[in-house]
Amino acid sequence: MSPSLFEKHKAQLELATAALATRGYWSAFAEMPSPKSYGETAAEAGKQAFEAHLGKAFELNQPGQTGVHAGEQSPYGTKLDVRYPVCDPQALVEAALRAMPAWGEVGAEGRTGLLMEALQRLNQRSFEIGHAVMMTTGQAWMMAFQAGGPHAQDRGLEAVACAWREQAAIPRTAIWEKPQGKNAPLRMAKNFEIVGRGVAVVIGCGTFPTWNTYPGVFAALATGNPVIVKPHSNAILPAAITVAAIREVLSENGIDPNVITLAVTPHRSATAMLVKHPDVKSVDFTGSNTFGNWLIDHCKQAQVYAELAGVNNVVIESTDAYRAMLKNLAFTLSLYSGQMCTTTQAIIVPADGIATDEGHKSFDAVAFDLGQAIESFLADPKVAHAVLGAIQSADTLQRIEEAHQFAEVVLPSRKLDHPEFPGAQVRTPMLLKCDAQNESAYMVERFGPISFVVKAADAHAAVALSERIAREHGALTAGIYSTRPEIVDAMVRGTWRSKVALSINLTGSIFVNQSAAFSDYHGTGGNPSANASYADSAFVANRFRVVQRRAHI
Amino acid sequence: MSPSLFEKHKAQLELATAALATRGYWSAFAEMPSPKSYGETAAEAGKQAFEAHLGKAFELNQPGQTGVHAGEQSPYGTKLDVRYPVCDPQALVEAALRAMPAWGEVGAEGRTGLLMEALQRLNQRSFEIGHAVMMTTGQAWMMAFQAGGPHAQDRGLEAVACAWREQAAIPRTAIWEKPQGKNAPLRMAKNFEIVGRGVAVVIGCGTFPTWNTYPGVFAALATGNPVIVKPHSNAILPAAITVAAIREVLSENGIDPNVITLAVTPHRSATAMLVKHPDVKSVDFTGSNTFGNWLIDHCKQAQVYAELAGVNNVVIESTDAYRAMLKNLAFTLSLYSGQMCTTTQAIIVPADGIATDEGHKSFDAVAFDLGQAIESFLADPKVAHAVLGAIQSADTLQRIEEAHQFAEVVLPSRKLDHPEFPGAQVRTPMLLKCDAQNESAYMVERFGPISFVVKAADAHAAVALSERIAREHGALTAGIYSTRPEIVDAMVRGTWRSKVALSINLTGSIFVNQSAAFSDYHGTGGNPSANASYADSAFVANRFRVVQRRAHI
Repeated sequence: MSPSLFEKHKAQLELATAALATRGYWSAFAEMPSPKSYGETAAEAGKQAFEAHLGKAFELNQPGQTGVHAGEQSPYGTKLDVRYPVCDPQALVEAALRAMPAWGEVGAEGRTGLLMEALQRLNQRSFEIGHAVMMTTGQAWMMAFQAGGPHAQDRGLEAVACAWREQAAIPRTAIWEKPQGKNAPLRMAKNFEIVGRGVAVVIGCGTFPTWNTYPGVFAALATGNPVIVKPHSNAILPAAITVAAIREVLSENGIDPNVITLAVTPHRSATAMLVKHPDVKSVDFTGSNTFGNWLIDHCKQAQVYAELAGVNNVVIESTDAYRAMLKNLAFTLSLYSGQMCTTTQAIIVPADGIATDEGHKSFDAVAFDLGQAIESFLADPKVAHAVLGAIQSADTLQRIEEAHQFAEVVLPSRKLDHPEFPGAQVRTPMLLKCDAQNESAYMVERFGPISFVVKAADAHAAVALSERIAREHGALTAGIYSTRPEIVDAMVRGTWRSKVALSINLTGSIFVNQSAAFSDYHGTGGNPSANASYADSAFVANRFRVVQRRAHI
Repeated sequence: MSPSLFEKHKAQLELATAALATRGYWSAFAEMPSPKSYGETAAEAGKQAFEAHLGKAFELNQPGQTGVHAGEQSPYGTKLDVRYPVCDPQALVEAALRAMPAWGEVGAEGRTGLLMEALQRLNQRSFEIGHAVMMTTGQAWMMAFQAGGPHAQDRGLEAVACAWREQAAIPRTAIWEKPQGKNAPLRMAKNFEIVGRGVAVVIGCGTFPTWNTYPGVFAALATGNPVIVKPHSNAILPAAITVAAIREVLSENGIDPNVITLAVTPHRSATAMLVKHPDVKSVDFTGSNTFGNWLIDHCKQAQVYAELAGVNNVVIESTDAYRAMLKNLAFTLSLYSGQMCTTTQAIIVPADGIATDEGHKSFDAVAFDLGQAIESFLADPKVAHAVLGAIQSADTLQRIEEAHQFAEVVLPSRKLDHPEFPGAQVRTPMLLKCDAQNESAYMVERFGPISFVVKAADAHAAVALSERIAREHGALTAGIYSTRPEIVDAMVRGTWRSKVALSINLTGSIFVNQSAAFSDYHGTGGNPSANASYADSAFVANRFRVVQRRAHI
């Protein structure tokens, strides 16, 4: 069975690994929720499938069930009330360990085939997952579909392809024949067995419950490890659907489905017990520095792959496309109300302003014009709701409330009424401005739609500040707007030291906060915002070990 | 210059990467110290080059020199008195940081070419290095030449080839072109810059100052990191020659030689300061659990690649070549007086003995016969001195003195007088026997020529014990002697769980404690004896990061 799934998906796997080698545009899964790609009935069927979960028990048939848990609060204010099984973490670990040897013996080919089959199955459920992501995270529909569905699946496939590339580089067997001059050579037969490290725990976040989870889930599974998914308490449904879909594919193919389980842990102590379990050998995490650093400090038995907070920033030094630049930035700051780990928080502008195709613009003018660009972009409520979505957490709402204390408000955040969801917490972005010295305002992550236009002494100070922010506080994204090659070059060299991905003069429909699987690395793993990258060799290579044996022939 | 060195060594690099892909026998450097391979004058010239260091100052022209340090004590009792520069660690780190950007800009090709040139240069100095290794570590000449010279160089080249493979998989540039239906596609130019993580510190051990150091040194250098080598206080000379040779190649090619420096640190505080320095991003270490675990706990700013202690073991269940098996084991236990990290310490035998081609042998008979095999192998003093070498440290001498307390002595260790070196501390292996329950005797590493024949309840208990030892205490090597496929299979499966390399029925001139570069992984990185392997993708992939930039076309 498994070899045939490998054969079934082999052509696509070759395209995926070829894409990794060239890093041009490539995508396995259609990003538009169109009938052409997904079938005439997919949209309606997916919505119904999502709605069928509401108010019901979500069945997973996992071991060690001790109760059920509900409690997801939709940022759209609708009632979800899905009841998930709560399972004893120890029972989940034991079930994972029982499933592990057979999962290892399926081999790299078998696992790759099964996981590509599972990704295809997930893709077919993209509408269902899209609605689940939308209603748990507050993302607007298009983003929820794309980032929650095909883009997440692409990142999952990317991890499978990376893992395949590393595993395929290791021969299963070798004949070792050492010449002995005139004597017969020494000959040995060697076998190289790829074995997973142990149980993997993947901890999801509340904003991107699939996109930020699939890389770890699929990398760990592909390399022979059973996985326990610990979703964010408010974004369980997308994870539950994912786990159910993968379990289904495993079961259909005669594999113990406990290769992947869902750990809904209403109590923190259960999560702590799980991640510190001696048989848990890797933890993937996306979320706060507080918990992320706790994991790194306390889970010494495991390799921790962490994406934490950062202070993403853009330097504006000069531009020959002022309006287009402002529009581009306005979209970035508005998308999902700035609740992306890649959203720009600090926009650094020299104190004496910038040269543009519309003449010189003072620092204050740039800040004002950016505020106006946001206002104008969001003036049409249809556009606003399609872009902003809703605010995911009460913490973010509170941060918006309090932000005016930290700097001078250029553009206040507004509460919008959602035409479809009266209970939705919708907020427009808030823009502030301050001096570079006011580090306490802007040099700490203020997750959500809160950004600062920061006044730097001059262009070089702006570039240096960007580097220092990324080095000391981390950043997943950086941007530069400049018509001067020497400034762009200085910024480029700064990013080599601070290890942050750089977007240069984005004025069209590519945005600094977007990254495309198979081409853009998400995070470099080299500054405090993340110790790993989606997805490079380092993300997969240490998830398995090679155990060799040798004997004379 | 650098591209031409890449071209010069390209054919060999291709052979090296091909060897990694097939893991058959391959070696870049001749292992026999013969005139045919190294030239008629090489042996004498190398000896003279070694002797020319004695009693002199070793010049490295490093920054921040604050004094000199001597003090290596030869296990052969001869006087060395080489005086090494002591440099302020902070000055070495600063010099490394200054050298780093240009080292990065040399690029993967340039670095690979330079390092292969350096390895070739080191190979030409194999006799000099061999004598330096012999006289500082106590290895016998042949091992000192081979393990200290060509075998270490092979491991260095293996790391370079692994690093090249990973770096070459990343395109330097890409054109990303996303179709937009009827509209013009979105097009972006992307660049992917490989950047080292930061300063690398490589800490050497007292027994294999080059073999255990070259993988980390060359992996870190190849991936764009400057390296500071911190040698063991008693095996500085081989490291100093290595550093000098690499600095020479760098200087000749216009590269700042401070890409690699030697840190002789007479005071522990200087070492601690060095490894905890915020700019130090990786630490490679071979040595004790105490210091290794201290590094892991305290150097949180760095990735630590550690090879620590373990309890290597062999299970003897049955054999069809009893004499050959005993001879093979006797060699393993004798080689360098058991001072290899791969030497077997526990030989597990079922309580009711084993079936052999010479009939049934009781547990006591196996132990006695193994002792006799060691005696008989070492009966000829010429053989004994060629194999045993000298005891490297006073701690090991003391462990030999005390070992009789822990179990019943089967074969006591004898002190031999070395015909050439009257002051040499030469000891034959000591063999003890005990019950499996006596874990405090054999289930802790007793580094040196101290081994235990351990009585297990039966064959399955022996196999299970082997697995538990490796899981809980670590092991770099394991062996099985059995004529029963089901026992061999059980042992194989046990090693998949305990993640230890297995040698099966070795009765010829391959030994469990030997590992060949490009074919055998040294360590799996999956049990407490080591968290990394020489050399796999995981050993190199996280030593660099990819920093991308993108702009519209």
